[in-house]
Amino acid sequence: MRVYRSIRSLAKKVSEIKKRKKTIGLVPTMGFLHEGHASLIRKARKDTGCVIVSIFINPAQFGPGEDFKKYPRNLKKDLDLCEKEGADIIFVPEAREMYPDGYSTHVNVEGITEKLCGISRPGHFRGVTTVVTKLFNITMPDIAYFGQKDCQQAIVIKKMALDLNMDVDIKVMPVVRGKNGLAMSSRNVYLGEDERVQAASLYKALRLARRLFNQGERNSGKIISKMKQVISKEPAAKIDYIAIVDTKELKAIKKISGVALVAVAVRVGNTRLIDNVILN
Amino acid sequence: MRVYRSIRSLAKKVSEIKKRKKTIGLVPTMGFLHEGHASLIRKARKDTGCVIVSIFINPAQFGPGEDFKKYPRNLKKDLDLCEKEGADIIFVPEAREMYPDGYSTHVNVEGITEKLCGISRPGHFRGVTTVVTKLFNITMPDIAYFGQKDCQQAIVIKKMALDLNMDVDIKVMPVVRGKNGLAMSSRNVYLGEDERVQAASLYKALRLARRLFNQGERNSGKIISKMKQVISKEPAAKIDYIAIVDTKELKAIKKISGVALVAVAVRVGNTRLIDNVILN
Repeated sequence: MRVYRSIRSLAKKVSEIKKRKKTIGLVPTMGFLHEGHASLIRKARKDTGCVIVSIFINPAQFGPGEDFKKYPRNLKKDLDLCEKEGADIIFVPEAREMYPDGYSTHVNVEGITEKLCGISRPGHFRGVTTVVTKLFNITMPDIAYFGQKDCQQAIVIKKMALDLNMDVDIKVMPVVRGKNGLAMSSRNVYLGEDERVQAASLYKALRLARRLFNQGERNSGKIISKMKQVISKEPAAKIDYIAIVDTKELKAIKKISGVALVAVAVRVGNTRLIDNVILN
Repeated sequence: MRVYRSIRSLAKKVSEIKKRKKTIGLVPTMGFLHEGHASLIRKARKDTGCVIVSIFINPAQFGPGEDFKKYPRNLKKDLDLCEKEGADIIFVPEAREMYPDGYSTHVNVEGITEKLCGISRPGHFRGVTTVVTKLFNITMPDIAYFGQKDCQQAIVIKKMALDLNMDVDIKVMPVVRGKNGLAMSSRNVYLGEDERVQAASLYKALRLARRLFNQGERNSGKIISKMKQVISKEPAAKIDYIAIVDTKELKAIKKISGVALVAVAVRVGNTRLIDNVILN
């Protein structure tokens, strides 16, 4: 396993790998890796000849009031996890390397980025699509891996790749959860002990949605209102949104007929958490 | 020479070419090809193993009141020119192939796209950078060729490729001119006989700028004012802008010290023409 910090040296390495006709799998991350990331690296290890993990806390995807500065970091532990899971190349650029002085180009997917998390995080997805475009151009992956926990991000990146004719396969891997159902997230480290217990209400509400759906309920309003009751019981929880939408345009569905995405965003104390399930 | 109309079939062909380790040269055009385009194709023919010419009148780079509908077309003649100049592949997609229903992703370079032509053509460069990104992703060129006549476009595309870490070399080839100095442009076909004579004033003014500079004049205001006199003599000419700017950020230069770009945009009758020279 080798660590690269400069774009130029990594790009040179990538061009050598391409010449040897090895397939490349990319796992883009912001570090502070957990079992969710590990599952992506393992899948990439299975699928491709060379696994590249990028670790970059992308300033462009954080809003002014957000947690960019305090976002958790532990490079030593991250490298250990990558090594253990069999990654070949780790890309750890500085912000200045990715966005040098005078940087001014952005990639933006319209429409679906303005819904769900896009409402309370304007500019977030533009930051994501821009950095992912850069990472794709630098690492030239055959396959790139993303987690279903960030369901809107996955949908946005698929749309970007489709619209811009990017020659990369986007694979989305299932949410990995802790014992109490809490979806793995680097931000879980912010949670106090009691908040962590309350944070389990997100998945509790999502399981309730699935149970209601399996029992035949198709009215989104009714499902959402019962989910709200579950989460509202927790004193530290403030709902940002609970939505039932289609998986393509992320438009609200009133009466569920095909596949539906149930997505929640909840602030537990100062920590914004997201989770989702798919109904079909 | 083979003509492709679908992205999928061309992408398949490109992947075969890449496997045979041939270098690819891309000449993106909107068709109605002239000697300017021919010079790009010839250069690509010299430099690379496979020359791809795209012919696509990109709706995304035309504003609401602009000439998208009446933009000149002559595919038969274009193919003859491409054949004669030794192009290998012609890509002629329909608008629907490039922008299918629900298309929603754009690439935008900020700052430099809001100056010069960006002022009277808002959104124009966003259309250009978006389609060029798509064409790069589809044809994976080692080198892409653009004309210096569209100097701001060339600067914007270079900035995009740099910012987004695109693995392509951008080559910009000199303006090709007719006998009276008029820069070759597909839009010249719009000009009546008398307008064509008046249109020569753009280059006349640019040559005057160069002469003044060579005589030691460094005051941009003085140069511009004398250029204005030349163009204003022509009754059908309406100046959009005459600017002396740096070649990186396109910021106005008051006193010329390093390299300077002298750029003009003039409406002659109903036809908007641009031209430029570099002083150094």
